[in-house]
Amino acid sequence: MTKVLAINAGSSTLKWKLFSMPDETVIASGLVDRLNLPGSIFKVKLANGQKYTETKDNITNKLAAAMVLTRLKTYGILDHLSEITGVGHRIVAGGELFKDSAVITPLVLKQIKALKDYAPLHNPVQAYYIEVFQQLLPEAQEVAVFDTSLYADMPAVNYLYSIPYEYYENFGARKYGAHGTSHRYVSARTAEILGKPLKDLKLVTLHLGSGSSVTAFDHGKALDTSMGFTPLAGVMMGTRSGDIDPSLVGYLAEKLDVTMPKMIDILNHKSGLLGVSELSPDQRDLEKTQDERPKSKLALDMFVNRVVRYVGSYVAELGGLDALVFTAGSGENGIAMRQAIADKLSYLGVAIDPAKNDFRGEERIVSPDEAPVKVLVVPTNEELMIVRDVMRLGKL
Amino acid sequence: MTKVLAINAGSSTLKWKLFSMPDETVIASGLVDRLNLPGSIFKVKLANGQKYTETKDNITNKLAAAMVLTRLKTYGILDHLSEITGVGHRIVAGGELFKDSAVITPLVLKQIKALKDYAPLHNPVQAYYIEVFQQLLPEAQEVAVFDTSLYADMPAVNYLYSIPYEYYENFGARKYGAHGTSHRYVSARTAEILGKPLKDLKLVTLHLGSGSSVTAFDHGKALDTSMGFTPLAGVMMGTRSGDIDPSLVGYLAEKLDVTMPKMIDILNHKSGLLGVSELSPDQRDLEKTQDERPKSKLALDMFVNRVVRYVGSYVAELGGLDALVFTAGSGENGIAMRQAIADKLSYLGVAIDPAKNDFRGEERIVSPDEAPVKVLVVPTNEELMIVRDVMRLGKL
Repeated sequence: MTKVLAINAGSSTLKWKLFSMPDETVIASGLVDRLNLPGSIFKVKLANGQKYTETKDNITNKLAAAMVLTRLKTYGILDHLSEITGVGHRIVAGGELFKDSAVITPLVLKQIKALKDYAPLHNPVQAYYIEVFQQLLPEAQEVAVFDTSLYADMPAVNYLYSIPYEYYENFGARKYGAHGTSHRYVSARTAEILGKPLKDLKLVTLHLGSGSSVTAFDHGKALDTSMGFTPLAGVMMGTRSGDIDPSLVGYLAEKLDVTMPKMIDILNHKSGLLGVSELSPDQRDLEKTQDERPKSKLALDMFVNRVVRYVGSYVAELGGLDALVFTAGSGENGIAMRQAIADKLSYLGVAIDPAKNDFRGEERIVSPDEAPVKVLVVPTNEELMIVRDVMRLGKL
Repeated sequence: MTKVLAINAGSSTLKWKLFSMPDETVIASGLVDRLNLPGSIFKVKLANGQKYTETKDNITNKLAAAMVLTRLKTYGILDHLSEITGVGHRIVAGGELFKDSAVITPLVLKQIKALKDYAPLHNPVQAYYIEVFQQLLPEAQEVAVFDTSLYADMPAVNYLYSIPYEYYENFGARKYGAHGTSHRYVSARTAEILGKPLKDLKLVTLHLGSGSSVTAFDHGKALDTSMGFTPLAGVMMGTRSGDIDPSLVGYLAEKLDVTMPKMIDILNHKSGLLGVSELSPDQRDLEKTQDERPKSKLALDMFVNRVVRYVGSYVAELGGLDALVFTAGSGENGIAMRQAIADKLSYLGVAIDPAKNDFRGEERIVSPDEAPVKVLVVPTNEELMIVRDVMRLGKL
């Protein structure tokens, strides 16, 4: 028995979970929000249900990491920091270099930093946390878990764009995907639930949250995914446009008289459900208001349509479908949305039994017993995937 | 019996066809190429097989139109110009204004000119030909036939982009489609061949040429199409990228240090099959070299993949598929490409019998007799569609 920490750092948040391994039970978890801002919030939840919240101005990334460890001692979770033998870090961009998670070495750390072009808001801060935890827990084995590694080895036909080939060679212009840790977890879990090896399943996994992506699995590997060079591509999202005519980028920038970075920012932060509904990026707000507000309904209908299009294209690429899996915030909790997507896919053998679908955030099979395609809801668990990789690669 | 002229003007070409109506026989056809350039080429072909070619420097658009009419007299096709009672003009962009073809009035002409933002290389020159033929054939009924009208009434879910709604209202940012005249022709012809009303068919039509697009028909109308705000979007084409991560537009412009218009130009003219193969935008060149050149094969495989993705997504949107139709240069002549696309779609009930598929440029059903989805090759005939609209709307 040992303790392994999963670190999931965003640009202004630090999510973490401490696991007892190999039994995979969660000992404690927490979130530090509003980092480097007035009114930073530090939250911890223990296995016994106890919760602690602290607010404090301008908690830095370094202080946040230190607070996690000292509070674990304060709350009696740890006697000594050395009980934590491994730390796994979620890294957004691994480029083509990392086809699997990797034990942190000075070279690996340097490479993560060098990939900052592909995730400017994430890789630098995630690399920084690696260094902070190296100082705080010098004896722990650190492992980097890349969101992109699942997709590094997709067929070239799927990862290449139909642009001059030299842009791939010179500038790395290809599809890298995103949410890979989540898709990896739910695909593995689906195989367990269905009692079949993943390599024998044609699978489409739907990670539908504020960011959304669709992945097709064949022969145990990712065949294709909706996220692209960046996480702007693919299906419609909370505030992201997903796929649009590339001409529109230039046309709208000119009409709006904004710079290209500003235009891309609009497509990332003012578009998607928020942009169409003119109300909210959150499907719950749109569901509540869809009877009075046609634009709320329009945004929800467009979201369903974009997911349906991707599932259809992936069923064609896969040449079949054994299971369709919903995960992440909306996927786990959006009862009406799950039903709407399945209803539109009935021609492909997809069906959801409404009586089985009336729940949120649990692991269940929701297709009728005799349905040709299994439809599942599998709550994602990126942190568990991270600590499993720490155990596997760190040989703990 | 009367004579009607179809005018299909590009940025530097003038294609035309003179029909006897209502029997729809072609009396003469021709092409003026390299307009306004040294070595302009003027070609005519008569119904009896006779061909004439003239070369002359710098044939202007106005002279080209006049030459078409005077040569028709010279070659004994016309005694008097007044025998031509109708002229139909293909217009690339009709925006949301034109949901059908339209008899030319001063207002319609003004509107076509005003839509130049959506087709800067086409609408102005096409409007100019309307005026030239008004002068040359003052008594003929002129009709504008829009490539976009088929798509003007698609469901909002399909024509809207998931960007701020006001960009649709203020800047017309929506999906307009392209190749609509071709898709209209082959969908109507497919219904005739299958002996069923178009409104009872779930249809996907593949216009695959140097420009390529995919359209889904349901209840006799276009449900969705791959072309977008401009004809850059959708499937991979000869030199056009089709869909890419919108972030790439800004990223590549910065890496290449080019302006946005230049970047969009690269995506229109240096990408697609040409960009990936680094050899040619022409599938025939790539088929010839695919055994020795991996990039020729890669480009062809990517093209098939992108078409397969769109068909899959449209089958999902349609909730079924009665027929899949190939048209345009590659669709009519690309034997191996047709087979490759059908083979990848077998899960959706699509199949091509290789023995039936071994031909170019003819109208045939190529699926096995018992196949659940009919697969057809239907050579397109935009000019016939144009003169039919002249007869219908001009009440000739």
